[in-house]
Amino acid sequence: MTDRTFYENLDAIDPLEPLRAEFHLPVDAIYLNGNSLGVMPLAAPVRAKHVMLQEWADDLTASWNKAQWSTLPLQLGNKIAPLAGVGPDEIVVCDSTSVNLYKVLYTAMDIMRRRAPEKRRIVSEKNSAPTDLYIAQTLCTQFGMTLDLVDSDTLHAAIDDHLAILLLTHVNYQTGAVHNMADLTARAHLHGALAVWDVCHSVGAIPIEFGRSDADFAVGCTYAYLNGGPGAPAFVWVHPRHVDQIAQPLAGWMGHAAPLAFDQQYQPAAGILRYLCGTPAILSMSVLESGLDVFHKAQGYGGMTEIHKKAQTLTSLFIQLVEKECAGSGLRLLSPRDPEQRASLVSLTHPSAAHAIIQALRARGVIGAYREPDILRFGFAPLYTRYTDVWDAVMQLKSVLTTLS
Amino acid sequence: MTDRTFYENLDAIDPLEPLRAEFHLPVDAIYLNGNSLGVMPLAAPVRAKHVMLQEWADDLTASWNKAQWSTLPLQLGNKIAPLAGVGPDEIVVCDSTSVNLYKVLYTAMDIMRRRAPEKRRIVSEKNSAPTDLYIAQTLCTQFGMTLDLVDSDTLHAAIDDHLAILLLTHVNYQTGAVHNMADLTARAHLHGALAVWDVCHSVGAIPIEFGRSDADFAVGCTYAYLNGGPGAPAFVWVHPRHVDQIAQPLAGWMGHAAPLAFDQQYQPAAGILRYLCGTPAILSMSVLESGLDVFHKAQGYGGMTEIHKKAQTLTSLFIQLVEKECAGSGLRLLSPRDPEQRASLVSLTHPSAAHAIIQALRARGVIGAYREPDILRFGFAPLYTRYTDVWDAVMQLKSVLTTLS
Repeated sequence: MTDRTFYENLDAIDPLEPLRAEFHLPVDAIYLNGNSLGVMPLAAPVRAKHVMLQEWADDLTASWNKAQWSTLPLQLGNKIAPLAGVGPDEIVVCDSTSVNLYKVLYTAMDIMRRRAPEKRRIVSEKNSAPTDLYIAQTLCTQFGMTLDLVDSDTLHAAIDDHLAILLLTHVNYQTGAVHNMADLTARAHLHGALAVWDVCHSVGAIPIEFGRSDADFAVGCTYAYLNGGPGAPAFVWVHPRHVDQIAQPLAGWMGHAAPLAFDQQYQPAAGILRYLCGTPAILSMSVLESGLDVFHKAQGYGGMTEIHKKAQTLTSLFIQLVEKECAGSGLRLLSPRDPEQRASLVSLTHPSAAHAIIQALRARGVIGAYREPDILRFGFAPLYTRYTDVWDAVMQLKSVLTTLS
Repeated sequence: MTDRTFYENLDAIDPLEPLRAEFHLPVDAIYLNGNSLGVMPLAAPVRAKHVMLQEWADDLTASWNKAQWSTLPLQLGNKIAPLAGVGPDEIVVCDSTSVNLYKVLYTAMDIMRRRAPEKRRIVSEKNSAPTDLYIAQTLCTQFGMTLDLVDSDTLHAAIDDHLAILLLTHVNYQTGAVHNMADLTARAHLHGALAVWDVCHSVGAIPIEFGRSDADFAVGCTYAYLNGGPGAPAFVWVHPRHVDQIAQPLAGWMGHAAPLAFDQQYQPAAGILRYLCGTPAILSMSVLESGLDVFHKAQGYGGMTEIHKKAQTLTSLFIQLVEKECAGSGLRLLSPRDPEQRASLVSLTHPSAAHAIIQALRARGVIGAYREPDILRFGFAPLYTRYTDVWDAVMQLKSVLTTLS
């Protein structure tokens, strides 16, 4: 692994290599920020044009049936289902992750208030996605509950008989560290609590098993590894044991049992459809489908198993190469070293020049991200990142570090 | 007005006529459903293509700054402001109408619970948009309030000292009947209540004055008269006297005072920005701007005053012509006869054949809408509907009625 040929050979035998041709990659750049915004599938602008010129411009309101606008939330949910380990009609695509988290966390709190009103403790991780914590804070105030933020290494101990709800980001957005969904959910259940998962930073990057993990609720975004487009709508999943037991608070007309009956009285739809609220953003929803279709195609190339394997290899090689080529530069690994505990993300820290390094890399066409106060973050989306990208990125990083010192 | 020439002459002198060229109109059709989904501005697919191929595909995350994705919600809100009679930075575009109504109605209830906890009555109209009633029902349960649905003619009397919040759809989606926003708000304020308005069916159709009406909160959609595209994001306005007093419940990261600081603690942004929640659907948002830009251009042709005048003339002529040409057919006027009490919508009823008539008209290229149980609804969006469309539509209607009898 000490010269580029090694990486070229890995690309040559990469079973996922044909899928790279499904995307538009930025010219003269190595894009290592797909964990923030995925690249554009080539089918996406074709779909966008069709929605604009045929479905909207020519067919107008007839498209609710003719182009199946009405059923898009469930159709797209069914394309996410295989990536989340659930069956058909268990996921809908709608709204944003934050709005969907409000729906499910409210519902979880409502269940716990009925089931065990003495339990008022919500536990989450200090480094959870901030928006998850904001939504949780607001709902804790509404429900008279308290939000305890703990470090990752004290999480297990924090799951005790006082716990009402465990709310976790499956993969840490700063470090790429993965929580064990099945283990933590089992421990929460053992103590009579519910488990709510945010898979924004894991869906499409590592295999997810909502069903086998026996999770209670989950939300996730589609604009990162699923390549759905900027701000593409999010998704929501509720375990079938809960879904019909209770109504969610954002009771809009799209979640009504009969939206077109224009009843005055709210009557929630059966199943996950009740988690819909208002009229969906059809254009953003439609374009998202192109991203999901690449994952469908990927099933013919080994699917999530192969994607996960490649993510582990890409990130392991990056870590090894950085530690070899940039030794003594002050860069330190923030992500877990064990590939099993890491999604397709590597974060490094630099005590003084993190921001400057990211900027200098960007000027050389290597796109990573800086995060306060000292973090350099690099995402390796396996569907379109090459092994040679790892080599080339580290060579640029090494060169930048030489310039700085 | 007894032959087509009269309508041709009106088209010839229509000051708004040049704006029709800004839109793609469906071929061989008279589209009278713009109150449900506006037609496509010709600039919209150009903008969509740019967002796809430049902002997303090539520039990726750099577009948050470079393409000003970050400030789109406020930029677009500022383009709606002149249509709503408010100043700059008072409106944001985000989420759906239902989600935005949840935010403002929750906030209004929270204010009233502090200000006058004994007042627990919410009043709305029986024929309000169903989604408004659903959201209100859920929030009434949360806040221990009651929702009273009254008929339009008893609305005035229902505003008394027990009232906490008046929640009204400004223009009735079934009949086009307009409420007097200023009068009803003043009466609500006189009794110590707040007024929340849904302007989905009035914005872009008739002049709106949130400021001069002294309303408290408002929401509206952009996919109808504003021609923003299918399911385009909605907007939300909060009177400056309330906006900084209280946090709204959907406290997502986009409404944080410093979204990119990734604080663990929620701190609402100053002003209307705090009403943002999650990541916005950039593609749908961007395309919406093309619709708003036509309204900006319309200011050079008389603006909302001329748009309103044309709406009144179009709908008045349609009513007169239907009553003359289709006399004895069983069709009856459901909309208010007084043009001052009507937005750009005419609803008729037919005792036995409403659905069949709408279907037959559609087969002949006249697109209206059927609503249960006996309503035929025709929208006349003044930016692109011609006076000759009124004549042609009624001639087709007359012919259809002859076939049916």
